[in-house]
Amino acid sequence: MEKENIGTLINEANNRVLEILLSAEPVWIDVKPAIEAVGGMRKNTILHSGPPIPWEEMCKVQRKGIIGGILHERIADSEEDAVNLVEKGVVDIKSANDLRVVGAGVGIVTASMMVNICRDKRTGREGYCCPFEGRVGLSTWGVYNEDIEKRLKVIETLFGPTLSKVLKECGGIDTKNIIARATQMQDESHTRQVASGLILVSEIMPYLVRANLDKDVLIQCVDILVKTERFFHPLGMASFMATLSGAMNIEYSTIVTTMTGNGVTFGIKVSSLGDEWFTDRAPLLYGKYLAPQWGPEDSIPWLGDSCIVETSGLGGFAAAAAPLLLQLRGGSVKDAIWQTEEMRAICVGTNNNFSIPLLDLMGPPVGIDIRKVLETGITPVLHGGIISREGGQIGAGTARAPLECFIKALYAFGKKYQL
Amino acid sequence: MEKENIGTLINEANNRVLEILLSAEPVWIDVKPAIEAVGGMRKNTILHSGPPIPWEEMCKVQRKGIIGGILHERIADSEEDAVNLVEKGVVDIKSANDLRVVGAGVGIVTASMMVNICRDKRTGREGYCCPFEGRVGLSTWGVYNEDIEKRLKVIETLFGPTLSKVLKECGGIDTKNIIARATQMQDESHTRQVASGLILVSEIMPYLVRANLDKDVLIQCVDILVKTERFFHPLGMASFMATLSGAMNIEYSTIVTTMTGNGVTFGIKVSSLGDEWFTDRAPLLYGKYLAPQWGPEDSIPWLGDSCIVETSGLGGFAAAAAPLLLQLRGGSVKDAIWQTEEMRAICVGTNNNFSIPLLDLMGPPVGIDIRKVLETGITPVLHGGIISREGGQIGAGTARAPLECFIKALYAFGKKYQL
Repeated sequence: MEKENIGTLINEANNRVLEILLSAEPVWIDVKPAIEAVGGMRKNTILHSGPPIPWEEMCKVQRKGIIGGILHERIADSEEDAVNLVEKGVVDIKSANDLRVVGAGVGIVTASMMVNICRDKRTGREGYCCPFEGRVGLSTWGVYNEDIEKRLKVIETLFGPTLSKVLKECGGIDTKNIIARATQMQDESHTRQVASGLILVSEIMPYLVRANLDKDVLIQCVDILVKTERFFHPLGMASFMATLSGAMNIEYSTIVTTMTGNGVTFGIKVSSLGDEWFTDRAPLLYGKYLAPQWGPEDSIPWLGDSCIVETSGLGGFAAAAAPLLLQLRGGSVKDAIWQTEEMRAICVGTNNNFSIPLLDLMGPPVGIDIRKVLETGITPVLHGGIISREGGQIGAGTARAPLECFIKALYAFGKKYQL
Repeated sequence: MEKENIGTLINEANNRVLEILLSAEPVWIDVKPAIEAVGGMRKNTILHSGPPIPWEEMCKVQRKGIIGGILHERIADSEEDAVNLVEKGVVDIKSANDLRVVGAGVGIVTASMMVNICRDKRTGREGYCCPFEGRVGLSTWGVYNEDIEKRLKVIETLFGPTLSKVLKECGGIDTKNIIARATQMQDESHTRQVASGLILVSEIMPYLVRANLDKDVLIQCVDILVKTERFFHPLGMASFMATLSGAMNIEYSTIVTTMTGNGVTFGIKVSSLGDEWFTDRAPLLYGKYLAPQWGPEDSIPWLGDSCIVETSGLGGFAAAAAPLLLQLRGGSVKDAIWQTEEMRAICVGTNNNFSIPLLDLMGPPVGIDIRKVLETGITPVLHGGIISREGGQIGAGTARAPLECFIKALYAFGKKYQL
């Protein structure tokens, strides 16, 4: 194909993807067990974050999470049995991302675990993400014990069914509107979603108190909504997945539709290349540790699907919306602006749905073009938690998606379209 | 007295005032009828915003409010009777400010109307401000009709007593903490208190659902908290009054403890000069009108005690916390920074309780020194609603406190201390 011709086709395709990303209308519509909500989920399926990875190569905390998931599902009764079943290939271990599920941290999702369902009203596509069980949980940090089991059960038997009912009664919660308002209130929607969480509580509370709930059920639901740290984060991530799902599989588009890591490998997907993974070694984060005894040697490379936020043009791309985050680790207002402006160099558009006061109401960049990444050598900047080798968060900071993923993707693109 | 000596005394006094302003710990502790909460309130007392003013000089909307207040208290049965009683001097009309009550807009407060009580835990001083009845109300816009009467009755018989109970159970709500968090989320706490309102809802909700309320009472309270536009504003104002009350009557201090207008005159008080008013003609606001048919000729000069927010170093003084507000009327991030920095020139300190992301976490200026106002010719900038001659808000903008008030105050200061 001639070069001029392919350039036009790519630009048209990318404009179409951009249009899908900008016009999406994600809504939180339901909470359901993963097996009922997620296509491809079976009773013995355990999902994890990041690109697919063999059991023996998985990082320790993710393996711990898989074992926890098996125990939670009572597929095995002991850790030893669980490992045996995995090694025999009896457990169906999959990348969450391939099933349109977003797994924060280790990203463990099992059949009976509840997922928040967000749907893009424009395309009908859905994205899924487990509600957080608290600051520490099975789904996020791979921790499984009696207390976590109890909290999972509350979510599965009490919170999930109640919210499912309330969401149906109120017609769903418009997450795009919430994120738009929160972007003006110091949320970049990855490391910080304080305002989104607060807005959500105020939006849902009038419906919750009208829902004829037992007093005790009402109290527990209110406590989970109000007191779960970063409760909104899974709703944002599921919304972004719903949005990006609509942007997948557009012929000729060079726009990134997935970025994620499993603590070992980091992978991206590109619209026109469907569900093919382009992977490299996962990057380490640099940033601020929560206590002086921790340093880079204690941390593991990027783990988690949460950089779906950056893939959607928020998080590190919207640093200018949340200079507070950079300031807490020694940065300045200018650093926040520069970070957003640097990302503009690798994106095809601006998302003015999310206007940023610090940029005099201009939105953040959106639509990462693998061509621009290779032209400039600038790779996407990701905001995230720094995770300990033993599990748990030990800091917060920034990573860069590895350039190699984009090189491999562009090579595959050239091959597919015979360039 | 020698000039050097007085200078030292003034600086020491001002430092003491600054310390009181910075260390205050205001808490929303109760909701009670004004007659029970406010010292000096009688059954036939009607409070209004701004400096004291004779009935015949009052602006139309404030007169309307006084009449509405008389009808609400059933002191008279008709508007005509109400006016007669006022003209006979039977009604005890007072400046709210003199009783440590903050009246937003027309600032009508009557004996049975509920007031939010905020108390500075450090000094024990209290400030009072009516909960808003909705977007339009008697207390704020002087509007009185069947619908407003109904809403006032809900506040007096249902919302007030319920919140009083809940506040006692939870030990009060820390408003300083809320304002501090909101200052990082685009609230300057005068024209915008979106984040404060959201935080308040999330803080109080767990207590509210535990309070053994009838379902209907719970629903009504939740609706008032969540849906009343700017519900937090009266809590902020009452908190600032509680704080400033502790800073009043400090000998030798040249710091402003009150600024307010009644739509005709604008007045200030100065710490060492107690409750003496220094007045001038109230200033007009400039800004953006809500509809093209309105202009300055439709508006009245500054009306309302809400610039207690600026007296406390927020609102116009914290413009850098809320560039969004200036942007909505055509300004920029730089305008917001400059406005805050201009105000720094007339203040004695910086309030780092309220750190501003845009200023790399420096706080806004606080403690207006009448000497600095006269040295620089810079007068305090006030954020506020533009009010129609007929009542109701027709825009939002900015006014400048009149220089003449500060000249009069400094003259009185010189006289008192024989300078």
